Order: sequence, then structure tokens, then C-alpha cells
Amino acid sequence: MRHMREGDEVNDQVDPAKQATPAAGDDRLIRGQARLAEITGRTGADVMAALGEVAPDFARYIFEFGYGDVYSRPGLDLRTRMLSTVAGLVCLGHAARELEVHIGSALNVGATREEVVEVIMQMALYAGFPAALDALMIAKTVFAARGLTPPAP
Amino acid sequence: MRHMREGDEVNDQVDPAKQATPAAGDDRLIRGQARLAEITGRTGADVMAALGEVAPDFARYIFEFGYGDVYSRPGLDLRTRMLSTVAGLVCLGHAARELEVHIGSALNVGATREEVVEVIMQMALYAGFPAALDALMIAKTVFAARGLTPPAP
Amino acid sequence: MRHMREGDEVNDQVDPAKQATPAAGDDRLIRGQARLAEITGRTGADVMAALGEVAPDFARYIFEFGYGDVYSRPGLDLRTRMLSTVAGLVCLGHAARELEVHIGSALNVGATREEVVEVIMQMALYAGFPAALDALMIAKTVFAARGLTPPAP
Amino acid sequence: MRHMREGDEVNDQVDPAKQATPAAGDDRLIRGQARLAEITGRTGADVMAALGEVAPDFARYIFEFGYGDVYSRPGLDLRTRMLSTVAGLVCLGHAARELEVHIGSALNVGATREEVVEVIMQMALYAGFPAALDALMIAKTVFAARGLTPPAP
Amino acid sequence: MRHMREGDEVNDQVDPAKQATPAAGDDRLIRGQARLAEITGRTGADVMAALGEVAPDFARYIFEFGYGDVYSRPGLDLRTRMLSTVAGLVCLGHAARELEVHIGSALNVGATREEVVEVIMQMALYAGFPAALDALMIAKTVFAARGLTPPAP
Amino acid sequence: MRHMREGDEVNDQVDPAKQATPAAGDDRLIRGQARLAEITGRTGADVMAALGEVAPDFARYIFEFGYGDVYSRPGLDLRTRMLSTVAGLVCLGHAARELEVHIGSALNVGATREEVVEVIMQMALYAGFPAALDALMIAKTVFAARGLTPPAP
Repeated sequence: MRHMREGDEVNDQVDPAKQATPAAGDDRLIRGQARLAEITGRTGADVMAALGEVAPDFARYIFEFGYGDVYSRPGLDLRTRMLSTVAGLVCLGHAARELEVHIGSALNVGATREEVVEVIMQMALYAGFPAALDALMIAKTVFAARGLTPPAP
Repeated sequence: MRHMREGDEVNDQVDPAKQATPAAGDDRLIRGQARLAEITGRTGADVMAALGEVAPDFARYIFEFGYGDVYSRPGLDLRTRMLSTVAGLVCLGHAARELEVHIGSALNVGATREEVVEVIMQMALYAGFPAALDALMIAKTVFAARGLTPPAP
Repeated sequence: MRHMREGDEVNDQVDPAKQATPAAGDDRLIRGQARLAEITGRTGADVMAALGEVAPDFARYIFEFGYGDVYSRPGLDLRTRMLSTVAGLVCLGHAARELEVHIGSALNVGATREEVVEVIMQMALYAGFPAALDALMIAKTVFAARGLTPPAP
Repeated sequence: MRHMREGDEVNDQVDPAKQATPAAGDDRLIRGQARLAEITGRTGADVMAALGEVAPDFARYIFEFGYGDVYSRPGLDLRTRMLSTVAGLVCLGHAARELEVHIGSALNVGATREEVVEVIMQMALYAGFPAALDALMIAKTVFAARGLTPPAP
Repeated sequence: MRHMREGDEVNDQVDPAKQATPAAGDDRLIRGQARLAEITGRTGADVMAALGEVAPDFARYIFEFGYGDVYSRPGLDLRTRMLSTVAGLVCLGHAARELEVHIGSALNVGATREEVVEVIMQMALYAGFPAALDALMIAKTVFAARGLTPPAP
Repeated sequence: MRHMREGDEVNDQVDPAKQATPAAGDDRLIRGQARLAEITGRTGADVMAALGEVAPDFARYIFEFGYGDVYSRPGLDLRTRMLSTVAGLVCLGHAARELEVHIGSALNVGATREEVVEVIMQMALYAGFPAALDALMIAKTVFAARGLTPPAP
């Protein structure tokens, strides 16, 4: 799922930590928040801060169902999971912010810059060139923010 | 790309082999047809037969650009390529026939039944449950046609 | 808009003619039904029969707004209108039946078989190969039903 | 979510009941199965039977997350929930089977035939006429199966 | 339909009022403009100003067909109509500006903040989490602009 | 395909000219770059500059396959090709930047301002009003940048 970025508004008067504090036995939430941190390198506090005011349960579903259930499943390695997610997001066409987060996640869990580019280019076959081109521009931004240098020509 | 299935009409009066016979130096076409065979386990003659009458150049583009250019690129292993394609096709929502072919392709190049299912289920997060559910029903058909037994419960 | 095909259920107990009989001064409806006949070669009775039972006003909107307003506008020739519609429907991805009708409409108003194929193939660049391939298979069916022979190779 | 229909293959050798039998404290699953029955008028056994062989956990997610979490929320009445779902499915464009099920669900929870038709027609403004027209044809089938007679003209 | 926002360019040299001034007997236009005002709380002058230069007839279609025909139909209350529209727009994925306007419209005609949030969250099941998350962020903006306070935690 | 606009980042350290310099016999690339210039009025250097760092081969595919293969085909005039592309992009819903470029391309190859507007308005029938409205706003920008005055009312 998408995580809020620095530009997003955050309402300091809300205390998101309270709203998503795991209760005893709340295994899915705990597992999900840990998995989210592993994949995205973030704590999820930004998700809570952005959603906490308007839809705190939606943040909880992202943690519990998205990361606690689905992304915690065995049966497929995280690198392939995240590259598949990048492929899916390219084909959706409208998920610019998610692409930004999950291109980063793919890199976090071991995919290379080149692999991300290959997956995106391949989706031109299925979703058309505009969707792939938009995604490559997003990837370029993510790579630049991480100081990933291009391969020597 | 999708390949024609047994149920598709084939016009015997067309000789597709002639239309896509590689000429000397036609490296992309030769490479593409070989790659297509490696990935899908088919010769591409069915594609030519189905398209040859109406749009023979489109079949050539599938071979040359789809398989000769894109799927022949280094930088990403075929198993990840095909699982990413499955993910992308689930998110498109309308590509039922392509899904059937490329779930098979994923299995051909080393993905397991379980991995295919994981990728599809994960796409419920991004494209919704209906798209994932439709894809699982297609996967079930492909698995059954190959006699792949479910894991013991 | 789509018109019902022979396979669609028709409820004979409904008299669609009554429901969309133009009243005096009902210029849009009259103009729309004439335009629909000109473009599709049908009377619209099939649309009324299929929709008349469940949503007769929707049939009226198709006639009035779709054909009476939009398709009756000056400023663009019908051949270009219908080829543009084919292009748009390919990119929607899910409009198989509409494609069948409007590939026929494009031929009715002066587009050639070759032009229809060119428009569809071109959309592979924007909507991906699966959407274009599905549309080519539909075009093949329409061409065959009209006895349009392929160009000599 | 979609539920399997009579035409779908069911593997009798699988015992779906076992796989989704709620354990002690499995509140979400129990709540979800009850909510699914309330909304769809079915037990969910068909979902388990269809998915149990290929992706039993996906059936569980449908029960737990779809019906146990989301559809069990307060804050919006079921009639509005189901009419909104019909609207959303029309706009997706590719969810024919889900539309069939959830048009039925909307009727089950108190929406009228007329209200379903109004919601679908309105979506022509946002998703275009083809998507709305396809949905009206599906609605017609659902209405017919329930013996719902059209309003007198 | 979408209405122009303050940030949109307006060409003062165009006099939109002239172009869409209802003539005698132009019932659909009059009815549509009144319905638009009732639903959106605006006069439609902004729509005319934004479109009047490039496509004045399109503004007229929005008034006449969108609001004069469809949104003026009996058979479904406005609150349900607008919540269904919000649901449909979430599933389209690309209609950010329309969502902003029609979340406001839903509130105008009696839906609560909570109901809007419920409809959007529910669409995560059908269109995926990214589409729902983007819509929640838009809803948050609309709520803030109206000074709607969140429910006490 | 989309071309980078002035606002896009360009990395001066990359020499895109080198990467896409046609080699002897590289007919598709040469033909594609010429076709691109004819259609878009640009050299393609901006595409190379934007993509050269992250995915130079993707720029080459745009030239070779997009313009050298598809847009160089006989069988359909360029004006109809570009108006069809505009129609397709409206229906995709997410291709704002491509729309901007190809509305310009349509004008370049002989389509009139009025014809572009007609094609976009017509797509409201198939993709809904929001997609058409967004496209009209983009068209307005393109027209303004070219000093195209509206027709006298």
C-alpha cells in the first residue's frame, strides 16, 4: 500500500499511535507492521498520521490484511513479490504514488535497479507504452533519490 | 502475447509459414520465434494461423518485438518475467485468454503452482478481489489441464 | 452504442415500438433513430426489444443523446468518427460486443477492412497487445460475416 | 465478492467445510460467513468448493476481510452498500460475474429492481454507455431469474 | 460531472451565460441547471466558463443529459445516487477531480462524512487499495475545506 | 508515445545522441526518427534525454517499433491515425501527458481544432464524461499554446 510522503498533510492533533496500538493477541497487526517495516523501510506511522483523522480503520486494514496476511504469506520470495507488484501497478495505470513506494520496496528487498526497469519495460506489451513510460519516469525519480547511478553505457 | 487455442478458427487456405518465414538476416524474427517456443512451448504457428488472414504483420510484431526484443532481454530471469506478466494481466482485468497462456508460460519456465497462486492473490490488494478471483479460476483450469495436484491440506 | 444481436433474448410481450415512438416535436429521437440506421444499418428495434423490458429510457438515451446529439454533430466525417470509436473501444478493453457492432459501423460508413485493422493494430501501442489482439479476433469475425476477403499476400 | 454459480466446476474430493471451519475465537470468520449469508443468501460453501482446491486462503480472506471486516462495519446501511457496490462494479467494466451476484445481493437487502436500474444507468455518465449496457443485460437476467416483472409501461 | 475549480483558467472574454441561456421550451437545460445547483451548490457558470471557449456544447450536454435527464430521474433518492457516484468514481481510478466535486455533492444532499468514508473504503474490495487510498486523501481535503471535524476517537 | 516536456529533468551528463545513433542498416530506427519528427515536430532528442539515463532501449523501442514500424505503415492516413490515437488515449483515462503530445500531433498532420474536439466529446459515450472532460481541458491548453482561436460563437 502507499505510504504518505513528506508533502502530505499531517494532523498533529491526532495521535495515531493510540489508534493502532496492538492489543494483546493482535497478531496480525503486529506481524503486519513488522512486515511493512521490512519491506518499505518505514514504520507505518506516516500511514496512520495521514489516514488516522479520516479513516483509521483503513490504515489498520493495510497493516493487518495487506502486510499481516498477504505479504506475510510463505510460498513466494519478497523480491518476486515486489517486482510483481510493480508490474501490476504499471498495468493499473493510475497508481503513481504506489509505484513510487513499491519501486522503492522492490529495491529494499533485493531487486536491482535493472530488474525494476526490465519489469516496467515489459509491461509496455500488456498495458501500452504510456503506462510504462510514466512508470519509468517515476522509477527515475526513485533511483535518483537513492543515488543509484546508471550503468555505464 | 496470447496464442490461439484449439477452439480458435483456423483458415487452412492461408499458409502462415510463408508469411513469417525469416529472411536472411532477420535476426529479431528468428530470435523471437525461438524465445516464444521456449516460453510457451508452442511454435507460433497457431498465432500465424489465427492472425495470418486478418493481420499477418501483427503476428510478426508479436514475434519480433514481443519475444525477439523484450522477452529476449537480459537483466531479468524468465521465471520472474512470467510471474510479473501474470501480475500485470490480473490488473488489466480484461485479459482472460492471455492469463491462461501466461500462467502456463510461468509454469513452463520454472515457477511453481504455488507461486502463481501467490502472485494472483496478492493482486487482490491492487486490482481488487474480482480480478484476482477471475484469475484464480483461470489458473485452476490451467493447473487441471496439466494434472497438477493441489498441495495436501 | 451496442445493438442486440440475434443471440440476445427478446421478450415478445413488450412492444418496444410504442415506448420509443417519437411524439410531435421529438426531434432528437427522430434524428437519432435515423442516424443510428445510417451508421449501423439497423432500425434500433433490437435495442428497444432488449432494453425495453428493463430500462426503456436507456434505449431512448442511446437514440437521443448518442445518435441524435453526438453522432449527428457536424465537424467530423462519419468515417473518422467510427474509426475513432473503434480505437476508443479497443482501449477500454472490456467492450467486446460494442467493438463487433462498431467495426461493422465503420465499414458501413466507408472505412475499409484495411483501415479498421490499422487502427486496431496501432492501439497496441497505447492499450497493449492483448486488447489489440482480442479486437483483431473480433474484426476477423465481422469481416468473415460480410464475406470480406483478405488482401492477396 | 463473487460466489460460484451452478455452472462452475466443483471438486467433490475436497472437503471445503474442513478448511474454513472456524476455530475457537475465530470471530472474523464466523462473522463474515454470517454476513455473507445475510447479504447473498448463500452459505459460502460454493466459494469454498470452487477455491478450496486452488487457493483456500483466498476464500478465507473473502469471508474474513470482505464480509467479516468491511461488510460488517456500521456507519452505512446494507442497501446503500450494495447499490454502491453495483455502481463500482459497473465502472470496473470487467466484473460481469460479480455484477450478477451483487445485483442479487442488492435486491436481497432491500433495494428495488428500479433502484438497481437507476444506479446502473447513472454510471453511463462516468464509465460510458457500453459498461452500463452490459450491466443492464446482466440485471435483466437476474430479474428474470427471480420472476421480477417489469413495471407497467 | 466535474466543475471547474478556482485554480482553473477562465477566459473572461467569453460570455458563457449567452451560450447556455435556455431558450423558450428548453426544459432539459433549465431542469438540468437547477438540478446541478441543487446537487453541487454551484450555478454551472464555472463549467460554462471553462468549456465555453473550447467545447460549449459539451457543457450543455452536462447540463441537459447529465443533470436534466439522468440526475432528474425519479426512482432513486439523491443521497444514494451521489454515494453510488462516489463508488463508481473510485473504481474508475483516474477521476480525481470528479471525486472531489462529488464527495462534496454527496455531503450536500444529505450523506454524512462517515457514509462517504464507508463507501470509499468498501471499494478497496473491488478496485484495490490504491484507488481507495487516493480517494480517501481527496475526501480528507473536502472534509477539511468544510470544517468537518473527525469523530472523537 | 509521449515526449518529454520542458519541465522534465534532463541529465546533461548522458549523451543520448550516442546511444541512439543509427548504425549502418538500422533502417527502422532511421525511419522511426524521421516519422516521429514528421508527426510530432520534434527530434526525439528529448525522449532520449529523459529516458537515456534510466532506459535507453525503451526510447529506441519507441522510435523503432512505435514510429518505425507502426506509424510508418501504409493503409491509413496520418490524420486519421492521430485522431484515432486521441480517441484511444481518452478512453485509457490515465494518459494525460500522451494526450497533450498527440493532440498536438493531430494538429500537426492536418486535423483541425474542431475535429480534435469532436473526437474527444464523442468518447464521453464510451469512456464517460470525466475522461472526456479531462481531455478537453488538456486540448484547451494545447490550443492556447498554439494561439488557436475559438470559432466565433
